[in-house]
Amino acid sequence: MCGIVGYVGSGEASEFLIDGLRRLEYRGYDSAGIAVYENGKIQIEKKKGGLANLEAVLKEHPLHGHIGIGHTRWATHGKPSDVNAHPHGDCHNHFVIVHNGIIENYMTLKKELIEKGHVFKSETDTEVVAHLAEELDDGNFLSTVRKVLAKIEGSYSLVFMDDSDPDTIICTKKDNPLIIGLGKGENFIASDIPAVINRTRQIYIMNDYELAVVKKDSITFYDHDDKEITKEIHEVTWSAEAAEKGGYPHFMLKEIYEQPKAIHDTVQIYLNKDGSVNFKDLGWTEDCFDDIDHILITACGTAYHAGLVAKHYIERFVRIPVSVEIASEYRYSNPLTTSKTLCIVVSQSGETIDTLAALKEAKRLGAKSLAVTNSISSSIARESDNVIYTMAGPEIAVASTKAYTTQLVALLLLALYMGQLRKTVKPELVKEITDALKDLPKQIEKVLKENDYMAEVAERLIKAHDIFYLGRSIDYAIAMEGALKLKEVSYIHAEAYAAGELKHGTLALITEDTPVIAVATQDNVSSKMYSNIEEVRARGAEVLGIGYEDDAEIGKYTTETVRIPRVDPFIAPILSVIPMQLLAYYTSIKRGNNVDKPRNLAKSVTVE
Amino acid sequence: MCGIVGYVGSGEASEFLIDGLRRLEYRGYDSAGIAVYENGKIQIEKKKGGLANLEAVLKEHPLHGHIGIGHTRWATHGKPSDVNAHPHGDCHNHFVIVHNGIIENYMTLKKELIEKGHVFKSETDTEVVAHLAEELDDGNFLSTVRKVLAKIEGSYSLVFMDDSDPDTIICTKKDNPLIIGLGKGENFIASDIPAVINRTRQIYIMNDYELAVVKKDSITFYDHDDKEITKEIHEVTWSAEAAEKGGYPHFMLKEIYEQPKAIHDTVQIYLNKDGSVNFKDLGWTEDCFDDIDHILITACGTAYHAGLVAKHYIERFVRIPVSVEIASEYRYSNPLTTSKTLCIVVSQSGETIDTLAALKEAKRLGAKSLAVTNSISSSIARESDNVIYTMAGPEIAVASTKAYTTQLVALLLLALYMGQLRKTVKPELVKEITDALKDLPKQIEKVLKENDYMAEVAERLIKAHDIFYLGRSIDYAIAMEGALKLKEVSYIHAEAYAAGELKHGTLALITEDTPVIAVATQDNVSSKMYSNIEEVRARGAEVLGIGYEDDAEIGKYTTETVRIPRVDPFIAPILSVIPMQLLAYYTSIKRGNNVDKPRNLAKSVTVE
Repeated sequence: MCGIVGYVGSGEASEFLIDGLRRLEYRGYDSAGIAVYENGKIQIEKKKGGLANLEAVLKEHPLHGHIGIGHTRWATHGKPSDVNAHPHGDCHNHFVIVHNGIIENYMTLKKELIEKGHVFKSETDTEVVAHLAEELDDGNFLSTVRKVLAKIEGSYSLVFMDDSDPDTIICTKKDNPLIIGLGKGENFIASDIPAVINRTRQIYIMNDYELAVVKKDSITFYDHDDKEITKEIHEVTWSAEAAEKGGYPHFMLKEIYEQPKAIHDTVQIYLNKDGSVNFKDLGWTEDCFDDIDHILITACGTAYHAGLVAKHYIERFVRIPVSVEIASEYRYSNPLTTSKTLCIVVSQSGETIDTLAALKEAKRLGAKSLAVTNSISSSIARESDNVIYTMAGPEIAVASTKAYTTQLVALLLLALYMGQLRKTVKPELVKEITDALKDLPKQIEKVLKENDYMAEVAERLIKAHDIFYLGRSIDYAIAMEGALKLKEVSYIHAEAYAAGELKHGTLALITEDTPVIAVATQDNVSSKMYSNIEEVRARGAEVLGIGYEDDAEIGKYTTETVRIPRVDPFIAPILSVIPMQLLAYYTSIKRGNNVDKPRNLAKSVTVE
Repeated sequence: MCGIVGYVGSGEASEFLIDGLRRLEYRGYDSAGIAVYENGKIQIEKKKGGLANLEAVLKEHPLHGHIGIGHTRWATHGKPSDVNAHPHGDCHNHFVIVHNGIIENYMTLKKELIEKGHVFKSETDTEVVAHLAEELDDGNFLSTVRKVLAKIEGSYSLVFMDDSDPDTIICTKKDNPLIIGLGKGENFIASDIPAVINRTRQIYIMNDYELAVVKKDSITFYDHDDKEITKEIHEVTWSAEAAEKGGYPHFMLKEIYEQPKAIHDTVQIYLNKDGSVNFKDLGWTEDCFDDIDHILITACGTAYHAGLVAKHYIERFVRIPVSVEIASEYRYSNPLTTSKTLCIVVSQSGETIDTLAALKEAKRLGAKSLAVTNSISSSIARESDNVIYTMAGPEIAVASTKAYTTQLVALLLLALYMGQLRKTVKPELVKEITDALKDLPKQIEKVLKENDYMAEVAERLIKAHDIFYLGRSIDYAIAMEGALKLKEVSYIHAEAYAAGELKHGTLALITEDTPVIAVATQDNVSSKMYSNIEEVRARGAEVLGIGYEDDAEIGKYTTETVRIPRVDPFIAPILSVIPMQLLAYYTSIKRGNNVDKPRNLAKSVTVE
């Protein structure tokens, strides 16, 4: 992720830059910065934290000028800090740049540049691009940028400033988005349309390897072969708000639809080419679990539900007992955690205070620790001995969707990795599952096609007072997440139950007025699950089943069934939760709720 | 418990006996039997199982006669079986008796009688009484019975027949109930009024040590000093049904009120005089936990909630990690149970099929096993390596109350006992807690005085759609039971939440229309709990707190507060659940539900 902006014109550059960055905060918000050409020099101000921190700095030290670039960051390389924030300059800030993406060969380039005397200030991959420009500078801005691009590998949108050519911005992209807004006597550069939409609705959308030389009165485009080209102007008809959401009416829906990409990104960084799993940054060895007799997973809310699924994964593949504790309960339970405990904490934001406190308690008792988080260098990531990251990108909707499914993927990969090291899982099985994980984004696309069907089911659910979610084994853990999703955004009292436990009391609540969602993807308990569905049908409940597309049985028991592709039962939860996310979303909006900001809730809970 | 009947008159004795026993089945139903004087001999038929089994036998071998006694059993000594069923006779069935209670010195008496040549058929304590009568027989029924009573110690209601005095029944009692119904040309003996109510409404209520000689046309009463006395006749105005319930309108309320006695009975059998705990029947030794690295508790419904409390008890006093699993989930979870696991199962009926299956799975994996049950020689008791019994007596209402609180007591005593053996708990602390347990029946009496207040609160809850129960630590486990109770009998959608976890999603459901019950008895988290109460108050919810009578703080946060006496935080749950039981009961009846037999539910769940 990360958001990029650029301005060249006659107005005050910083005004547009800050306004544009604010509209791109959904792309990241762990640090921000701008660079403006002022009094013959490119001046940079940048600050860790949200945009407000940067604005405070600019209030003290305003930057005045008519050309500039800006960046809001979602860290991937190097922790969020002032110095790692963009823009980055070379040794003398001759060239200053902002970047979204990853320069894959930056280590090699950095080494060479250091040997040549360049002094690096940050831990980022990005900074090499600026130094490389300085190194390759031939006095011509465009030709220098072309030389730089010939050297770098990876993905990027890049925006360059050159203090010897102070009327020009040069930008280009590969695998990351970049657009240019055409103004009158001014032009705008941004990662995404919302940043420019209140200045212009005439947009050029950059394609991979295209390059633009942007001045206040002209934009010149070049293709991959340096040939000048003419590009079509797109007229934006969306509102600014819709634009931020990429055309989706709400962040929650957008994020549901981002799951194929988020999962793809999370899977690919932890896989070797042979299909085995690699968390090499953990530095774990074959014998490092010899001293671990217990794994504790502690988390809150949705992340706790991911932990409940992970218990199945880890116990199956690693054969070490796992307990999953609500973080706010664990902390005060006088726990029996020891130095033989591995404590895994899960938190999207990495700032959940209950989880952080539980992590500290586990460490105090001698546990080894590992965080699974979506936020690089968050408090939890820093507190933990080790970290693995989900690659979901910023999640804006309060109700978590893509963060949850990427947590499941990361935890499944982790379980396989630990099993690989301990030799408690066969390499063929690891390969089978990782192959299936590579396929998962496509399978999710298929499940997302049930969107309209789920909207239709939601229409029928909006009047329900109570809805029960049933499942056995991993399906029970998923049912808990499905129920929580519905509670959070629809305000219907949903509750999940282990399907076999319902009859021990709660069955009294089941009538024709209590719809039931029944998840049935675990083959070893499917016949038991069908019996439990019959129990609630017998009390008049309508049952929406969630089952495999080739499960001929389930339809005999349910009122209706939404289908998911046939996958390994360990992967099924990542698919079966998606119809439940959609159901929650549509039930919420059909009830007229603010689905992205449900009442009483906050995104990252930093109170106990 | 156990139910007793007797008949002397001109009618067919067995007709009254069977009818009377049916009306006493609420006192026990694991086996039944009758004895009738027929053709110069006392004939006995008795059978394991419910009364229907005995009736089937009598259909094949009817007993005809005008004098007889009968018994329906709730086993305490000796498993339910044909031979352990009452009536019991001596070597020649000269004397035949039925008994309710415990003959405490039966071991000594039995040894003496065996030395004198008596041959015992059953494992019961009761049988010694018959043989003793045979041994002491002086040709006079009354004088023989008096000699027997001089020898026995313990508690009893006893009814005697003598084949040499075939017009007479002699009965007496100590600490167990006995009544005599006055008929016309026939008289009736029973444990309780419901047995006789459709034959007569004129009742003598026997006092301890009183003795009655009952013939068809006369009843002669004697006091402790063998002096003939005149007793007052009570005219019964209740219905038969009300009588069965001991004057309570429903079994659930009766059983709530039986908790002081049930807990007293459960505590006293497992305590030594020095206040230490003794489960000597388990045969456990100091080193028997050296090989146990994990304790698994598995159960269903209310018993599962008792297990959740027990985790706190055991981890605190025994310092071995405990996991608590829903039985229907555990069985199919490919569990990591080993020979180093102690599996504790909890089941009131001892017949819960999910729990039985989980127990078998744990045993198959090598676990040691221990059952906590209210039913001697139930399937679970038989399947388990060891058993400890709760002394709740038969529980008739589907929603468990006294079985639950006696499970908590038994599990607390068990945790203390294991801690004693492992020396992980100081004897002084054991004594402190067992002293408090001895006091507990009195404390419960105090809490039961909140009956009218809870009825009043219930009046306000009957229109609620959703009610949340909050607590932290042990209070969370109790909140779960409180919520289940309300669900079961009121059909209001109650849900319990760990108070600190609510804000991670479910808080979205809290409005002025969702009353909250907040349990706050755990001192180490009380300030956190108050904050959580504030969170829901801020969303408009009315909060009924449950707190100590000397807690001045809690009332500042709640809308209103029901008070329990100050006790050890480990004992508090046994008190704090009682207002919640009453609340569930009154909410149910005020909504017009069948509180003893709630819809969709059965008492002992013998399907998966």
